[in-house]
Amino acid sequence: MRNLTLLTDLYQLSMMNGYLETGIADKKAVFDLFYRFAPGLDFAVVAGLEQAISYINNLNFGKSELDYLRSLGIFSSKFLKRLETFKFSGDMFACREGEIVFPEEPILTVRTTLFEAQLIETALLNIINHQTLIATKSLKITQETTGGVAEFGLRRAQGPDAGIYGARASMIGGCKSTSNVLAGQLFGIKVTGTMAHSWVMCYPSELDAFRAYANIYPNNCLLLVDTYDTLTSGVPNAITIFKELRKNGYTPIGIRLDSGDLAYLSKKARVMLDEAGFPDAKIFASGDIDENILVSLKVQQAKIDVWGIGTRLITASPNPALGGVYKLAGVYNGETLEPKMKISDTQEKITNPGFKTIYRIYKSDGMAAADLIALRDENIDTSKPLTIFHPIETWKKTTFTEYSIRELPVEIFRDGVQKYTSPALCDIISYAEKRRNEFWDEYKRLINPHIYKVDLSDSLYELKNKLLTAKGGQNSISMGV
Amino acid sequence: MRNLTLLTDLYQLSMMNGYLETGIADKKAVFDLFYRFAPGLDFAVVAGLEQAISYINNLNFGKSELDYLRSLGIFSSKFLKRLETFKFSGDMFACREGEIVFPEEPILTVRTTLFEAQLIETALLNIINHQTLIATKSLKITQETTGGVAEFGLRRAQGPDAGIYGARASMIGGCKSTSNVLAGQLFGIKVTGTMAHSWVMCYPSELDAFRAYANIYPNNCLLLVDTYDTLTSGVPNAITIFKELRKNGYTPIGIRLDSGDLAYLSKKARVMLDEAGFPDAKIFASGDIDENILVSLKVQQAKIDVWGIGTRLITASPNPALGGVYKLAGVYNGETLEPKMKISDTQEKITNPGFKTIYRIYKSDGMAAADLIALRDENIDTSKPLTIFHPIETWKKTTFTEYSIRELPVEIFRDGVQKYTSPALCDIISYAEKRRNEFWDEYKRLINPHIYKVDLSDSLYELKNKLLTAKGGQNSISMGV
Repeated sequence: MRNLTLLTDLYQLSMMNGYLETGIADKKAVFDLFYRFAPGLDFAVVAGLEQAISYINNLNFGKSELDYLRSLGIFSSKFLKRLETFKFSGDMFACREGEIVFPEEPILTVRTTLFEAQLIETALLNIINHQTLIATKSLKITQETTGGVAEFGLRRAQGPDAGIYGARASMIGGCKSTSNVLAGQLFGIKVTGTMAHSWVMCYPSELDAFRAYANIYPNNCLLLVDTYDTLTSGVPNAITIFKELRKNGYTPIGIRLDSGDLAYLSKKARVMLDEAGFPDAKIFASGDIDENILVSLKVQQAKIDVWGIGTRLITASPNPALGGVYKLAGVYNGETLEPKMKISDTQEKITNPGFKTIYRIYKSDGMAAADLIALRDENIDTSKPLTIFHPIETWKKTTFTEYSIRELPVEIFRDGVQKYTSPALCDIISYAEKRRNEFWDEYKRLINPHIYKVDLSDSLYELKNKLLTAKGGQNSISMGV
Repeated sequence: MRNLTLLTDLYQLSMMNGYLETGIADKKAVFDLFYRFAPGLDFAVVAGLEQAISYINNLNFGKSELDYLRSLGIFSSKFLKRLETFKFSGDMFACREGEIVFPEEPILTVRTTLFEAQLIETALLNIINHQTLIATKSLKITQETTGGVAEFGLRRAQGPDAGIYGARASMIGGCKSTSNVLAGQLFGIKVTGTMAHSWVMCYPSELDAFRAYANIYPNNCLLLVDTYDTLTSGVPNAITIFKELRKNGYTPIGIRLDSGDLAYLSKKARVMLDEAGFPDAKIFASGDIDENILVSLKVQQAKIDVWGIGTRLITASPNPALGGVYKLAGVYNGETLEPKMKISDTQEKITNPGFKTIYRIYKSDGMAAADLIALRDENIDTSKPLTIFHPIETWKKTTFTEYSIRELPVEIFRDGVQKYTSPALCDIISYAEKRRNEFWDEYKRLINPHIYKVDLSDSLYELKNKLLTAKGGQNSISMGV
């Protein structure tokens, strides 16, 4: 286990040192981790919580960390002394991995001392931003296919972790397997893969290469057909080998296309395979595919059964950052929370103050209808109709009469003690599938998705307005916990 | 140290197992790692070699790796047995970190058994692709500024490694510091950072927050002025504190803008600071900046001295993958190399066959004039004029009379023994600066850069054409080593 305790921005440590000097280090505060509206991120699939919990549990300033910080010459010895016994002692709430969330919704809420909350900001953002980004991209990609998608991106991932945790997140978003053997080992994910062009080029001819492969893996014979020429060489050679396999009692898996015009080549190859008596041979395609290319290939009626998707999935190209932020929502004075908010000229950049939670409202058909961001001490009486309204265009109202609600965040840590055990990845994958199926396709489609309502409770709305109109750049008021 | 031995694609292991079955596992082969033409990657700054070397040296199939592979049920026990003693035994040549390279040029060349070469492909690509991408993005960004650039992207990086190694690569590309404390510790990079909005929001007022900070860090007083309102609150409060500091004999550093219209705000803030008697106070800017925004701010004469660049640097947005590939260039039959090439309908996708090197041609002014990809056994007699020609548009010729050449790749491993010691990062940074200064700005500019000539030697050109016209999908011929 690497020590990631110093995986933080220097200013977190400068501020912690400063809070200690000014006597507010032990003030409790509430921070929310959420993301703002961004291209391709009208919704997101939460991922990374397991790694975030592990990060928190393994925080430890050892000798080398402390020696390094001392060498910077900017920290008091009181501060360094205190780091020696640093341990997360606070509360954390978070949406489960696989949960669908929307902009502004707190994916994770930390309630602890300013001292602790500041240290962990950067790594929490790093971990949640990355995995949530890739899980979301994976959903966008996999929902455009009927066949399965294999994650193939390790070689183009932004470093080893991006490959490993990107593979994990891809599965949460809907991929069926990965080529990444280490991810397979670490998370028990199914691993897949057959041959590269180098295999084909290492034998005297393409036919020799295919035959060699079929002899070794007669039950897993998927042949890469584009090394020389797909239709005049690759597919005919594959068919020759498939016939040999069948004679020996084996069923070939199919062929893989990795370049060229996938629409044209797949349709031609399909006809060739069918006419040769292999209608069940699958066509696997890979090579710079993303959700938009998938849609285009579908429209062109490409005959592709299974997909290998690499670069654009594992990097979430062309929008490679989630843009999640971690914002102060309140500071306690003893037992009393002073809600805080960041003001901005841009309406969407104004944060939501207070200690909050999220309720998902379901109609009687079991489908998600709207979300409500509320203060934690509010109660929603589901026996009464519930009217919600748009937080900016407040004349837009909706009333629910028959509905149920579900609180999204769960308690992860209480007073530093872990209260939540991360499920096995296979269970996270099932959970994710269940949750995304609660949303109509109209909310999830790529182009002009229907806007899912995320409104503020009456109390939160009032609090926000009160703070907005408060004077003096202070923007906080006191309220009971 | 994590064991990254399984950081590979499953098909590498399937092929290795297959090579063993067909008796060609110990055939020696040559593989080149290079990238093809891609947006924003008309040139690249090599980075990641140190981590690639470390990866090779630490390859080790331990019990847990072997148990996992055995559990997949697809590998022979002979194969698993052989992995127990796996060690890289071959040769490797690579361009140094900080070297400027161009599409098609082998950044790294591996000459070893098919068995070994296949295993290491994925991780080498992962490491070199990532760091080279970020170093290149860093050069594109930093060359558009006169002030220094600090790398601030950890929270938006694609996982911990992307933050850590991205910070390292950013320095090779021209950044002056990072906010990433762990990268600071690991690589001895300068770390920077002062305060976040949360600091300002945790005190009764902005002025209190600034004063508290100035009291603790009187020698490093850089104040974040956009929490409430930059021009009516932040800058005036900063000036108040700067005056207090000066009275106590300290010199303030300056202010940081993190949102809003940076052109407008920086010009207004500059005037306010100047009029208040602080013409030396620096203006630091951050917030979703990239090379294009830098150019725009320069044109608008924004008054920004120092930059903090995060998301778009650390993810290389909007082109977050280098797209490097690792292609078979030849297979040995005993001492004789059969050059190999991958054919494609796309001219640029046809690989260069054979065991190659790169020469950089310098004119007498010391500036780089062209590169020549050549076979390793060729000699260039610099006492004679050298004529090079475009590899596709062959009528485009250039003759050098007074010139010198430098071979870019150096020997990294010979027969598995490391022959090259990676320099300290500070030396890599100096080397990178020296190398990028050998290129006229015209080659490096963002829009329509002058095309730098990368030609093939006569022998390589002939070999490539011979293979292209060869029949039978085999595309290899024999030639002496």
